[in-house]
Amino acid sequence: MKSILRLCQAVEEQAKEVYEGLAQRAADPDLASMWRELAMEEGRHREHWQMLLRSAERGQVPSLFPNEEEVEAELRSVLTRIAALRSGLDAPGNAAWPFVLGLRVQFQLLQPTLEYLLQWARRLSGEAEPKSGSEQALGRLVAAVRRCGAGPELDLACEMLVALQRQNQQLLLQSHRDALTGVRNRRGFLDAIFPLCHLAQRSGQTVGFLMLDLDDFKRVNDEHGHERGDEVLRAVARILQGNMRQSDVLGRHGGDQFIVFLSPVVAGAVAAVGEKLRLAVEEGTAGECPVTASVGGASGMLGRDVQRDVDKLLARVDACLFIARSTGRNRVVVQE
Amino acid sequence: MKSILRLCQAVEEQAKEVYEGLAQRAADPDLASMWRELAMEEGRHREHWQMLLRSAERGQVPSLFPNEEEVEAELRSVLTRIAALRSGLDAPGNAAWPFVLGLRVQFQLLQPTLEYLLQWARRLSGEAEPKSGSEQALGRLVAAVRRCGAGPELDLACEMLVALQRQNQQLLLQSHRDALTGVRNRRGFLDAIFPLCHLAQRSGQTVGFLMLDLDDFKRVNDEHGHERGDEVLRAVARILQGNMRQSDVLGRHGGDQFIVFLSPVVAGAVAAVGEKLRLAVEEGTAGECPVTASVGGASGMLGRDVQRDVDKLLARVDACLFIARSTGRNRVVVQE
Repeated sequence: MKSILRLCQAVEEQAKEVYEGLAQRAADPDLASMWRELAMEEGRHREHWQMLLRSAERGQVPSLFPNEEEVEAELRSVLTRIAALRSGLDAPGNAAWPFVLGLRVQFQLLQPTLEYLLQWARRLSGEAEPKSGSEQALGRLVAAVRRCGAGPELDLACEMLVALQRQNQQLLLQSHRDALTGVRNRRGFLDAIFPLCHLAQRSGQTVGFLMLDLDDFKRVNDEHGHERGDEVLRAVARILQGNMRQSDVLGRHGGDQFIVFLSPVVAGAVAAVGEKLRLAVEEGTAGECPVTASVGGASGMLGRDVQRDVDKLLARVDACLFIARSTGRNRVVVQE
Repeated sequence: MKSILRLCQAVEEQAKEVYEGLAQRAADPDLASMWRELAMEEGRHREHWQMLLRSAERGQVPSLFPNEEEVEAELRSVLTRIAALRSGLDAPGNAAWPFVLGLRVQFQLLQPTLEYLLQWARRLSGEAEPKSGSEQALGRLVAAVRRCGAGPELDLACEMLVALQRQNQQLLLQSHRDALTGVRNRRGFLDAIFPLCHLAQRSGQTVGFLMLDLDDFKRVNDEHGHERGDEVLRAVARILQGNMRQSDVLGRHGGDQFIVFLSPVVAGAVAAVGEKLRLAVEEGTAGECPVTASVGGASGMLGRDVQRDVDKLLARVDACLFIARSTGRNRVVVQE
């Protein structure tokens, strides 16, 4: 992870230098200030990378990519391309060349990896719903191109870049969401809670987990068909989401298992929320195809080795869920 | 579905007219022939839409979108935009205007809906692994822009359009694949087999289905954790894929269920393949975390109401799977 983070930092460093170069060469003061703002934005990203690097050096950033070599190779080629663009600063072309250069840099920065890690870093520094890293910079650049009347070719390039940015976001979102229910998949869930766990550790707050297992769910699929089973899963996801705090995190953990992260929690809260969710599922699905849920939960403080403590907490949750399922189901067992 | 298909047809009709207009106005004969080829490609697409429309009128195209109104609204706005581009034919601008216009049309045609339905139509007409509809046309246009030295702005726009096209494909692929195992999800599976079923019906061939259910899989998750459970699911998907014909279709049907479509099949083949797959799973996962599969299967001919007959066949598969699971598991029950 450390070499990936260093590459990200180097990429944004190069981008910053291109924008600074464009600012120095701009005759129009408005344009010069626009390029300077873009350079400053890259500078702000650099702070995020530095923070992530420090966390990684303390072993606090988990391995986020199954294919680290590939990700590194991709970032290295982005770095090469942006460095090549930088040398274009000294070979000005027609009147539109600064825009072409600036748009090309933005085009290179539209990497799912950069976007993903940047969102991660922002969550780690406490932003609740981090905005896309490239959205603001891109908007500024596109507005400037339009204002300057740089021509129909660049207008087209701008529209395409905006579309690319939107698709980039969509791809990122899709890979973190469960297609069936729309809630986070396992990867999305772990990604979302990891920074929150670190925040809780730093501020000494207690965190909690609940795991919900739909009782005898296979029966629904067998008796009513998969279509109906899917509807029930979607309904349960909606019910759970509707009965949680905005700040808590819901994920679909497996076929018929959901997981909830609660932070911060006070004594007794995990059991109370667990009971609330259990009841909501029972009442919300009463009708043609009723389902119930067994719920296990646990809460605790996290020590310096956040990952290990989260794993321990989840093992306790699993044990509680096992008890709930083997002692009658449709009940909540929490160890607080 | 019919009004969606009519809109698709109208969109490509408009695109064709833009390209024809560009061909008429091109002074350079090479460029004129390039525009004509693009127009002809749109013409070929039109045939696909007509075929799909005829199938839809016979009730042979299932409802492919949960949100038909949204899809229609989107296509209608694409149609409006391409019609607006068409009127640009009579207002030429600088030397690059034909390229800007052509690239804009391609940009508008990069719709997931169009791409998706076009692939569907191609599969229905018997192409095994249909290529992207826009790939060839785009390649031709980009090559022409480069050859003519249309300037750095349009070079940039071309690169972006190629990137957009690639992302469009990726988005389409992701929504049809199960993120965990990489095999088709339910939607992807049904999409893939529907045209194949129609082909089989027309040629009077027998088709078969196998449904595999991993025995007591919850135990793996409970005893070894979800990470391990996921590994097992990935391994099973690999094993199944490795033991099927290229022309058969594999899907992950639910948490621990896989489904296989076989076409064409001869008498006894479904039971034989079922046994082969059952054995492959048992032997392939022997070791730390062994799993076995119960398998149900059925085969039959499809009548004119393909969808109804597929549903009937799947009901028989379900019944067989139920017997396999309630009579000892790790066995194959097929009704041929």
